[in-house]
Amino acid sequence: MSDIKKVVLAYSGGLDTSVIAKWIQETYNCEVVTFTADLGQGEEVAPARAKAEALGIKEIYIEDLREEFVRDYVFPMFRANTIYEGEYLLGTSIARPLIAKRLIEIANETGADAISHGATGKGNDQVRFELGAYALKPGVKVIAPWREWDLTSREKLMAYCEQHDIPVDFNKQGKKSPYSMDANLLHISYEGGILEDPWAEAEEDMWRWSVSPEAAPDQPEYIELTYEKGDIVAIDGKKMTPAEVLTYLNEVGGKHGIGRLDIVENRYVGMKSRGCYETPGGTIMLRAHRAIESLTLDREAAHLKDELMPKYAEVIYNGYWWSPERLMLQEMIDASQQTVNGDVRLKLYKGNVIVAGRRSDDSLFDESIATFEDDAGAYDQKDAEGFIKLNALRLRIAASKGRSPLKLK
Amino acid sequence: MSDIKKVVLAYSGGLDTSVIAKWIQETYNCEVVTFTADLGQGEEVAPARAKAEALGIKEIYIEDLREEFVRDYVFPMFRANTIYEGEYLLGTSIARPLIAKRLIEIANETGADAISHGATGKGNDQVRFELGAYALKPGVKVIAPWREWDLTSREKLMAYCEQHDIPVDFNKQGKKSPYSMDANLLHISYEGGILEDPWAEAEEDMWRWSVSPEAAPDQPEYIELTYEKGDIVAIDGKKMTPAEVLTYLNEVGGKHGIGRLDIVENRYVGMKSRGCYETPGGTIMLRAHRAIESLTLDREAAHLKDELMPKYAEVIYNGYWWSPERLMLQEMIDASQQTVNGDVRLKLYKGNVIVAGRRSDDSLFDESIATFEDDAGAYDQKDAEGFIKLNALRLRIAASKGRSPLKLK
Amino acid sequence: MSDIKKVVLAYSGGLDTSVIAKWIQETYNCEVVTFTADLGQGEEVAPARAKAEALGIKEIYIEDLREEFVRDYVFPMFRANTIYEGEYLLGTSIARPLIAKRLIEIANETGADAISHGATGKGNDQVRFELGAYALKPGVKVIAPWREWDLTSREKLMAYCEQHDIPVDFNKQGKKSPYSMDANLLHISYEGGILEDPWAEAEEDMWRWSVSPEAAPDQPEYIELTYEKGDIVAIDGKKMTPAEVLTYLNEVGGKHGIGRLDIVENRYVGMKSRGCYETPGGTIMLRAHRAIESLTLDREAAHLKDELMPKYAEVIYNGYWWSPERLMLQEMIDASQQTVNGDVRLKLYKGNVIVAGRRSDDSLFDESIATFEDDAGAYDQKDAEGFIKLNALRLRIAASKGRSPLKLK
Amino acid sequence: MSDIKKVVLAYSGGLDTSVIAKWIQETYNCEVVTFTADLGQGEEVAPARAKAEALGIKEIYIEDLREEFVRDYVFPMFRANTIYEGEYLLGTSIARPLIAKRLIEIANETGADAISHGATGKGNDQVRFELGAYALKPGVKVIAPWREWDLTSREKLMAYCEQHDIPVDFNKQGKKSPYSMDANLLHISYEGGILEDPWAEAEEDMWRWSVSPEAAPDQPEYIELTYEKGDIVAIDGKKMTPAEVLTYLNEVGGKHGIGRLDIVENRYVGMKSRGCYETPGGTIMLRAHRAIESLTLDREAAHLKDELMPKYAEVIYNGYWWSPERLMLQEMIDASQQTVNGDVRLKLYKGNVIVAGRRSDDSLFDESIATFEDDAGAYDQKDAEGFIKLNALRLRIAASKGRSPLKLK
Repeated sequence: MSDIKKVVLAYSGGLDTSVIAKWIQETYNCEVVTFTADLGQGEEVAPARAKAEALGIKEIYIEDLREEFVRDYVFPMFRANTIYEGEYLLGTSIARPLIAKRLIEIANETGADAISHGATGKGNDQVRFELGAYALKPGVKVIAPWREWDLTSREKLMAYCEQHDIPVDFNKQGKKSPYSMDANLLHISYEGGILEDPWAEAEEDMWRWSVSPEAAPDQPEYIELTYEKGDIVAIDGKKMTPAEVLTYLNEVGGKHGIGRLDIVENRYVGMKSRGCYETPGGTIMLRAHRAIESLTLDREAAHLKDELMPKYAEVIYNGYWWSPERLMLQEMIDASQQTVNGDVRLKLYKGNVIVAGRRSDDSLFDESIATFEDDAGAYDQKDAEGFIKLNALRLRIAASKGRSPLKLK
Repeated sequence: MSDIKKVVLAYSGGLDTSVIAKWIQETYNCEVVTFTADLGQGEEVAPARAKAEALGIKEIYIEDLREEFVRDYVFPMFRANTIYEGEYLLGTSIARPLIAKRLIEIANETGADAISHGATGKGNDQVRFELGAYALKPGVKVIAPWREWDLTSREKLMAYCEQHDIPVDFNKQGKKSPYSMDANLLHISYEGGILEDPWAEAEEDMWRWSVSPEAAPDQPEYIELTYEKGDIVAIDGKKMTPAEVLTYLNEVGGKHGIGRLDIVENRYVGMKSRGCYETPGGTIMLRAHRAIESLTLDREAAHLKDELMPKYAEVIYNGYWWSPERLMLQEMIDASQQTVNGDVRLKLYKGNVIVAGRRSDDSLFDESIATFEDDAGAYDQKDAEGFIKLNALRLRIAASKGRSPLKLK
Repeated sequence: MSDIKKVVLAYSGGLDTSVIAKWIQETYNCEVVTFTADLGQGEEVAPARAKAEALGIKEIYIEDLREEFVRDYVFPMFRANTIYEGEYLLGTSIARPLIAKRLIEIANETGADAISHGATGKGNDQVRFELGAYALKPGVKVIAPWREWDLTSREKLMAYCEQHDIPVDFNKQGKKSPYSMDANLLHISYEGGILEDPWAEAEEDMWRWSVSPEAAPDQPEYIELTYEKGDIVAIDGKKMTPAEVLTYLNEVGGKHGIGRLDIVENRYVGMKSRGCYETPGGTIMLRAHRAIESLTLDREAAHLKDELMPKYAEVIYNGYWWSPERLMLQEMIDASQQTVNGDVRLKLYKGNVIVAGRRSDDSLFDESIATFEDDAGAYDQKDAEGFIKLNALRLRIAASKGRSPLKLK
Repeated sequence: MSDIKKVVLAYSGGLDTSVIAKWIQETYNCEVVTFTADLGQGEEVAPARAKAEALGIKEIYIEDLREEFVRDYVFPMFRANTIYEGEYLLGTSIARPLIAKRLIEIANETGADAISHGATGKGNDQVRFELGAYALKPGVKVIAPWREWDLTSREKLMAYCEQHDIPVDFNKQGKKSPYSMDANLLHISYEGGILEDPWAEAEEDMWRWSVSPEAAPDQPEYIELTYEKGDIVAIDGKKMTPAEVLTYLNEVGGKHGIGRLDIVENRYVGMKSRGCYETPGGTIMLRAHRAIESLTLDREAAHLKDELMPKYAEVIYNGYWWSPERLMLQEMIDASQQTVNGDVRLKLYKGNVIVAGRRSDDSLFDESIATFEDDAGAYDQKDAEGFIKLNALRLRIAASKGRSPLKLK
């Protein structure tokens, strides 16, 4: 353990990572650099400086990464209409690669040879942090205290704090939550506590970012999103940066009770876990992006994306953002978005995101062909006969040879 | 045209297929057999007998196919969590193969050598009817009047009616709808009229099966669905047949404003079209099936299903229900459902279908492993290190050879 | 038929397209522009000028497209290790989009409003020509004489020639072949004649480009191919252009009896057909490209390519080169090839292409890790335990709940 | 280490597993049960009894599993035309699940609580053994000596043998091979030695099962394989069991220099390795199975299989034979094979497997439709126009809106 000289720690300023900061210094007898990022989690990051200093840290990084996060991670992911296992919008997964990247960049800047994080040995986040770190700096060492130490209960942790003068009220943001939570501009997640029983309904006072549909306004609200190359660039005609877009959509979505999710998911490490998520802005973006694509994307381009989406989601969920396969998929996805431009009009009401209209200069909807009225020859209905006949040919030949599709075997 | 002797016509009893029944007799100088099915469209089918007789039809088939429809078509499709283009629940698509099958079976019973239908040359339904027919009876002839005749405007159609004594008030179900509609137990669809402008919002009075979320009750309602092998067999503890299940879910869903959809979709014949759909029960079933699978299905089984779902949906949408590829996919899907048993508790409220709980004797959720509390050694966190190290190995080797995942090119 | 003013015809100079050139002028009363390309089919294209002039053609295009063909079509396709239905190297399919593109470009230059070709109504080539043409010039008209005229037998064709002074010896290249053939720098194909019986073995004297393995030299020959970004840029240390590469590999491959193929394939129009192909250079390139990728490509990048290859092959086979989905797939494929650099050494012997070695500065093969000898700690075997344990976790949980993988149902 | 009572060891009778047998007894102070299987590796298994007895083993299992191996593992795999990374026929991978299954069954019979094997911590085989074991007996313990002990060099191993009276000449089968080898009825593999340099050509005297193409007979040989439901049931008209089929094809293939392979592959544990393989019978079976499928399998069924094959191969390669996803894929594959019946005629010559003919009562090849001659109306060429027009519609609409497929971006 003596060969590690300097460690960059993903430091939230909370109790756990404060203990880690101390534990690493003590256990590895090495320097610790803290890195605290504002990813939109809704807590002040500035106080992390004083806390880190109190722990004896000399090199302290505190950064606002909200724009980078949304622009280079969230938006590219939404171009693919990405959902994991049919439900989850990957709010935690998509933040990890950015943190991993900054940990490594800071390690390179500060001459550190190791990184550390506060993720447990049961979850996906350890994988995401470490895969990213190894991919970016292959020789880096990783300290994952939760897999190493013996502070395996809250009591031992408290005893350690007392012993090392770590102020325990660090973590008070109102009452102590019974849930394990993670938040960033895309979502907030809840695990543990009563959620460990998948039959138990989440309690109303758990949710933090959204009102319940019942408590949402009785009046619907319309918003209009403007897309360029698959990304939202303006809302209701007002230009916004990526982080502004997501911030705004979180507000308006949360106000209307949009984006709550309660699922059982399959972790990469092999177990099922139950999680609740609030993703107001993301829920709006997913539906709106599909709507603008429905008008502007070629059918086979759209279907190709749909067929590859589950894989792309899995790649991100499992922590392979910094992998060749993700980059290849991204090239393909981005190539499809050149013409995904235009406006989507949405109605928000008590948990519902309702598409009320979509329009685009790049629309492939051809009213003159699609119409039920006279199309003046734009489409020759007789073409359909040959189309069907030849598409049926293989089926007709098979049937004429005695095969019945009523039964395969 | 003289070589056709007898035609089985998919006959709704409405104006269009009545004209077709007459037109075929006149044009092809052949017998017509009518086939009218109750698929849950919500209209009486019995009157079709008198109408058909008035048109001179001798062989008249009227059948209640609701149970077969849900049991053998809707339920198998929902086992795959099937959605076309991320949104559409395939309500029309899934009914066509059953009609095609009955048309052919009746043709075989009655010695008919042709079938006919009232679908236009622009849509998907002609393809679905005819692919099914050819796959089941390869030498069958198809009469598709809308691709053949010159009754291309409402005026010409009316003139034809007058000329042939076809009562025009056939089609009065209250006011004449400006929309082209199709209904069965799974959904009702709307196309045409003002919907031809994708920017225009659907009018409230278009919708027929559901109230708007705004008009839905202010009190949420909980229901509990019981699954066996991926299908719902009971609701709130009461055993129900497949058609009873869907009927009940349509009622309760419609009451709570659930299942409205407004999309632009890509037709198989190559054009985009805009459609609105009401699928109250289907919307509930999709979410509930995912919930019960989330607890009972292995991760890789679930991901394999997710990766193949878009293809399976496309196969159904395009009309290839009666094809070897659909049967192969179905074998795979059904094989996965043996353990998809248990209960899902849902909260329905103003358009929202909220999963409130799921439980199963076949649950793969292992609380003793997943817990954030002490797991008594059920899971060794140290295993994660090796897991990550080896999963990272290819990335580390690449990085050590100078490759940067920050940029592929 | 009178509204067509000028047609660009894909003109081989052979009998069939000469008849077509005349038939179009006569039938449509319009001008014909001929386009003859050297794609490496091994016949002189220059004589096409005099032949076209004799048919009264005023605008005659004769072009050497060999470099463009290999560089922009063959090489990109081989980057994906493309094979259709496990066997076919797509020799005909890949030439059609280039011809379609030139037909349309010439139509634009000459003010033509239509294109024409000599492909029959049963095959894939009509589809490939016309899809390409429509994608590049949506309003273009297409004249496909084989689908239109009544010259449906050889006798009628000969009578037409006599009647219109078209010299029939046009087509004598030695004896009249009983096969329908197509050739370009990638391959030569044979269909029809005795090949219509899939049980009949092709006759030795059918093959034109290669000797039989039996007749090939008794001495093997080694060659060394140098790759840059997935394409061959030198052979045995000598820099070559793309067309030079393929020309050389055809020669050396044909000499060693390499690249004969005899298959039954599934046409896009719905029937099975039996074809024989000679693809000496392509057969070498396929194996060599896999060899250089095996050393330089990341595992998951390679597997992603492998999973998408069948679709990419189908897209090309079916004629969708000029489609968004092909372009998206190409982006992904090309993105993977940046590091596919290095040398492959091959042994050619009597039909065999044997990989004798591969090396690369971009190699990901790490001998220090892979070695069976002492690896000095490069790889910690203990990591494997955690790797296996967590990969097995879902299986262990399932088994502990009583599920047996010995039987799914 | 004291909590293990009895271990079932996969015992080859060779030096390494003899050392392991002793080492386990000594280290874990527990009973060892040996299991030795004849999978067609070409060595006597009977001598394993005496060797095991000499090591103090009381419970000794020696079994001939050749028929089960080919019938339940090799044949099902070949129904999918399975190849890993475009080249490898999975000869080692497919034997492991059978061994894992027997290890567990014997553990259950003998009351053992652990299994052990002689695979190293760098390879795929440890994963395949252990995943299978955990899937079949979730609480089983695994002893993997190569990951645990300190006998990490040949010298230490020899010292251990001397110290424990283990006869070292156990392993003399002629000279000591410089290669790490594995053999069963499907193949023999070579790794290590000079093969660790991917640029070095394998030496001729390494190969054991096949002559070189150069040394093969100058006369080709024809054989005829008869298929039922995708499996070979007779050769040259003679009924054979699965193991007889493969034994015969290995002989005739090896005689003709067929089935040598030299590749660099990607291991599941994350490294590239170079291996040489001899798979004479498998190479013949792969080509022949594609040939019979080409005649009898529907196009879309075949393409669906092709698209999923890489995943199926990966599942087997990575060791997930006993997983729900493999079973699901197998259901789908097997469902497609009901009509894969008929004969394939092959010509074997100096390394080449040449398809000379295929025929079947279940043939979907329709000569009356495919013919270049007059088809008497079996196929209406005019149908092709509508087919192309509608398939082109989306491309034409896009082009008419100004999109050019010449450039995506």
